[in-house]
Amino acid sequence: MPGAEKCKVIVYRNNEKSEFLCEQGSNLKEVLANNGFYIDAPCGGKGICGKCKVKVSGTKNVLPTNEEMRFIDRAELDKGYRLACTFKVTRDIEVEMKHDRGDAHIVTSGQKYKVDLNPKIVKQYLSLEHPTIDDQRDDVKRLIDAAGIADLSVPLNVMKYLPEVLRNNDYNVTIVHDNRSILKIEGGDTTKVSFGIAVDIGTTTIAVYLVDLATGKEVDVISELNEQKSYGADVISRINYTMENSAGIEQLRSKIVTQLDNMIKSVAGRNLVDIENIYQIMIAANTTMLHLFLGLSPKYIALSPFIPVNTACVDFSADELGFNLGRACKVTLLPCISAYVGADIAAGIISSGMIKQDETCLLVDIGTNGEIALSTKNGIYCCSTAAGPAFEGAHIRNGCGGIPGAINSIKIENEELKYTTISNIPPIGICGSAIIDIVAMLIEYELIDETGRFAEEEEDISNEMGKKLFNRITEIDGQPAFVITENPATNEVIAITQKDIRELQLAKAAIAAGIRILIKSSGQTVNDVQKVFFAGGFGSYINKNSAVKIGLIPKEFENKIVAIGNAAGTGAKMCLLSNSKLLESFNLMDISKYIELSSLPEFQNEFVDCMYF
Amino acid sequence: MPGAEKCKVIVYRNNEKSEFLCEQGSNLKEVLANNGFYIDAPCGGKGICGKCKVKVSGTKNVLPTNEEMRFIDRAELDKGYRLACTFKVTRDIEVEMKHDRGDAHIVTSGQKYKVDLNPKIVKQYLSLEHPTIDDQRDDVKRLIDAAGIADLSVPLNVMKYLPEVLRNNDYNVTIVHDNRSILKIEGGDTTKVSFGIAVDIGTTTIAVYLVDLATGKEVDVISELNEQKSYGADVISRINYTMENSAGIEQLRSKIVTQLDNMIKSVAGRNLVDIENIYQIMIAANTTMLHLFLGLSPKYIALSPFIPVNTACVDFSADELGFNLGRACKVTLLPCISAYVGADIAAGIISSGMIKQDETCLLVDIGTNGEIALSTKNGIYCCSTAAGPAFEGAHIRNGCGGIPGAINSIKIENEELKYTTISNIPPIGICGSAIIDIVAMLIEYELIDETGRFAEEEEDISNEMGKKLFNRITEIDGQPAFVITENPATNEVIAITQKDIRELQLAKAAIAAGIRILIKSSGQTVNDVQKVFFAGGFGSYINKNSAVKIGLIPKEFENKIVAIGNAAGTGAKMCLLSNSKLLESFNLMDISKYIELSSLPEFQNEFVDCMYF
Repeated sequence: MPGAEKCKVIVYRNNEKSEFLCEQGSNLKEVLANNGFYIDAPCGGKGICGKCKVKVSGTKNVLPTNEEMRFIDRAELDKGYRLACTFKVTRDIEVEMKHDRGDAHIVTSGQKYKVDLNPKIVKQYLSLEHPTIDDQRDDVKRLIDAAGIADLSVPLNVMKYLPEVLRNNDYNVTIVHDNRSILKIEGGDTTKVSFGIAVDIGTTTIAVYLVDLATGKEVDVISELNEQKSYGADVISRINYTMENSAGIEQLRSKIVTQLDNMIKSVAGRNLVDIENIYQIMIAANTTMLHLFLGLSPKYIALSPFIPVNTACVDFSADELGFNLGRACKVTLLPCISAYVGADIAAGIISSGMIKQDETCLLVDIGTNGEIALSTKNGIYCCSTAAGPAFEGAHIRNGCGGIPGAINSIKIENEELKYTTISNIPPIGICGSAIIDIVAMLIEYELIDETGRFAEEEEDISNEMGKKLFNRITEIDGQPAFVITENPATNEVIAITQKDIRELQLAKAAIAAGIRILIKSSGQTVNDVQKVFFAGGFGSYINKNSAVKIGLIPKEFENKIVAIGNAAGTGAKMCLLSNSKLLESFNLMDISKYIELSSLPEFQNEFVDCMYF
Repeated sequence: MPGAEKCKVIVYRNNEKSEFLCEQGSNLKEVLANNGFYIDAPCGGKGICGKCKVKVSGTKNVLPTNEEMRFIDRAELDKGYRLACTFKVTRDIEVEMKHDRGDAHIVTSGQKYKVDLNPKIVKQYLSLEHPTIDDQRDDVKRLIDAAGIADLSVPLNVMKYLPEVLRNNDYNVTIVHDNRSILKIEGGDTTKVSFGIAVDIGTTTIAVYLVDLATGKEVDVISELNEQKSYGADVISRINYTMENSAGIEQLRSKIVTQLDNMIKSVAGRNLVDIENIYQIMIAANTTMLHLFLGLSPKYIALSPFIPVNTACVDFSADELGFNLGRACKVTLLPCISAYVGADIAAGIISSGMIKQDETCLLVDIGTNGEIALSTKNGIYCCSTAAGPAFEGAHIRNGCGGIPGAINSIKIENEELKYTTISNIPPIGICGSAIIDIVAMLIEYELIDETGRFAEEEEDISNEMGKKLFNRITEIDGQPAFVITENPATNEVIAITQKDIRELQLAKAAIAAGIRILIKSSGQTVNDVQKVFFAGGFGSYINKNSAVKIGLIPKEFENKIVAIGNAAGTGAKMCLLSNSKLLESFNLMDISKYIELSSLPEFQNEFVDCMYF
């Protein structure tokens, strides 16, 4: 709206006050996001999740939208609560935001790994012969001859400073190259100073690892929530956003590149590493995240027959991708297997070592989607299930991610319901692992039946503990719900509703059916599986017993589970440190068979079958 | 001088008036050059050639500089003539410029050539299989599979529009590639529309050829004087300029790229060729011109042991080099052999076909420098002589380039001295071929002796014609001079002075000695040489008989000379049309032996020996 009036927006968050201008009529969520205020909006700003609630001053007379009516009650409206995604800024306002993104409790550690230290990016010290009238080789040829690598190309920007760096250092220089192209030339011997970055771009969270390429040691790690979350919680809502907004791809691309750029500078800065000495960024992420990172259209990933623009491993200069890092930094994107089995799973497969094991191994990564890979001696079978983000707390009434205050485990101890929270602070919601615990408990004590329906009468329950817990069943939003506790800050109950149970049923059925299909497709049985790797944050916290109880995984797997943490991050680190691991990832595409579940009639059968507890 | 007062400069040229501002105290030559007014300044603005004379209003009271005193007499000063290179703009002025660059008479035609039509850049029409749920290959893989070229890379900018161009054209597309990378994808079958540009960047002149890559036909050619000339006539003065001005490399780079960009747009425009359909620019030029074109420092080319930054063939995107052409245009620079035997000579060698002939052939390119190559069955011997620009009319009192009005041949007919001029217009100066004619005539009629000295007495001359011509000897600038005619526009005489004869002696001795050394180095004799290729504009116009008479070439060569015109341009066109010719040029470096004359004591002997007529 060019030429529109400006409105002043004042934001209070964490006792800090910020102030900026926006055009009259702007969408509040976008205004906040554009000014660096992260808003959790799993639905992508469609007004259907109600998570972007903020308190806006002087709005008593502004009529609520239909969307707001659904999520905000009269008392809240009176206090000024509104949905940022449907709220238009028509005059100067003050906004109070409850949570900032704070320290998300993101799993950045993975299993221990051992790789040969042979990074793709090499530093090589060279002492060149001085030119003479009898040896008039040009500077570039002299350099390449000394390196002993034919066909090593020298880009224009390096040629520009080559003559002076040679002559100022008495022809003793260190070249940084990837065996194909020289990225940089440094005076003297700098081979001991070499750093790389491994990145896992999750749909929800981002982990950035700083790695010393000279020693192979991990120096530090930093993690944040993915700022793209304000454009949608899952890949589909973000893809929809790009389809509905002409500048959407560029907005999301710029968001993630800027965030990564800042994270890299921050982790380098606090370890006194010069940005100029970071030569390689190795990136794992799902296929959609990689498309958005490159500014490629993810549109056809969302539409049948689900075709990505590119899945192969690709290399770019950091400059070309819009980073503002050292002049010699390369960015490598690990390969994806299909539209819904991305480079994060490829990295996970590498990190698990399952390719090289003689046993049949299963990898399950339950993030925003649920991807499953089965390695057999005939190759790798993999699939992606539309599990949805229930395990990440989305679409669950009191669900939340793995943030401080999230209830992350529940058990009955001395006939009392006990729970723990992340960081041991008062509860604010329930994260995925606790949701599974609760449902397992509800099943165990007969508070829900095998179809997932809440018991209606105490008489339906045959055990004493169950009868005791029955008191906690109440009605919320017109449906049965099981109350766990109360949020002391808001005095609101924290509960699991009938709808939440349904969400969980759909999610666990999708994964369980996927596992069955993969095993069947490979011609094996559940008993043939020797190891089950659980990747991702959720996999680290999950109670195996509860997982079996709700039917997420077959009983046969209970003692075969190995939690491998952030397997995508670990895989990216391994590929950063070892070119042979990177080459191994290139081959994944050839040895992998992707099973498109949506095209298999038998998947529907298995899915329905797995719905029951 | 930030914050300085501005002065208004009004320029009259070709009856057109232009007006602009400059900072007070600016150098007039630079001000003019920055505003697009080309000034011929062979000395590079050092005040030592006197060629940048312009008429400036109201300067009677501005004291002339020492440099001006040397080149401008009292009468001229009164009329307002000044040297632009030493004149500072201190107030509003009006400038009258005599010549514009007009239509330079540049030789753009070369010998006929025949090459297989297999350009490096290929257009390939593809009809791709549509994706299905059973064939979920990503867009990039689908494309590369259809092209049937493994390892064909797809750059990010192409990936960005790939999904839509495929789907909007029912998966029928034309790819533009160089067998390594896809440059562009066009909808439908566009294989018949493909153009390329061949360029010869001479130190003095530039030729740009528009070539139809689908048919192999040359569509059009355009030529201009190199606008870098205002920074120095020869490579050494331009290199000096870059060493004395910190922004010099960038100034010269930007100058040539902008000029080429405009020339390409102009030649494409007048032939209704869409810039987007020009996919390849193939460039021949000497080593220094290529350095300046890329923005590389030419400093160490000028300093012993004469080391270029790069001589190998290199490829860039036109974008990267600062062109503003189609998004898929590649620029290839042909390889150089050494600091002073450049890609222009390499292209000349290719165009002459001398590599593949069984005979021993000599190639002589007399441009601003004099480069010589000798092909034998043991490879190619080559050298560069510091001939200087005398053959291009520089450093000659009334010398000029091959422009309209230049006297280009002289002979005695019916006992009268007759001359011709380019474009048959009244004479304004003497170009190289006529200088050779004059000196040959002076020798023949004994007006100069074997040392080059003018006859002092009519009695020293033994022939009647000589005695008659002796009348034309007069004194100019305190030295003997031979008057040819008068410039009717200025009433000034056009003459050859003793100093001019000395310049010519030095130039011809350098080339003659170079030829002797090359033949000797290869273990052959003058009689072994079967063909002598004369390249360049000068080579096209030269009178062979005069060339032999002044001792520029041995008498044995007189009937072996083949003028091959703009051999560099022809070679560039051949490499543009034929990848096998381009690959042939890559090998030149390996089969060539560069003889550094400055390090050979015998060269001095030959040089002195060749000074005599």
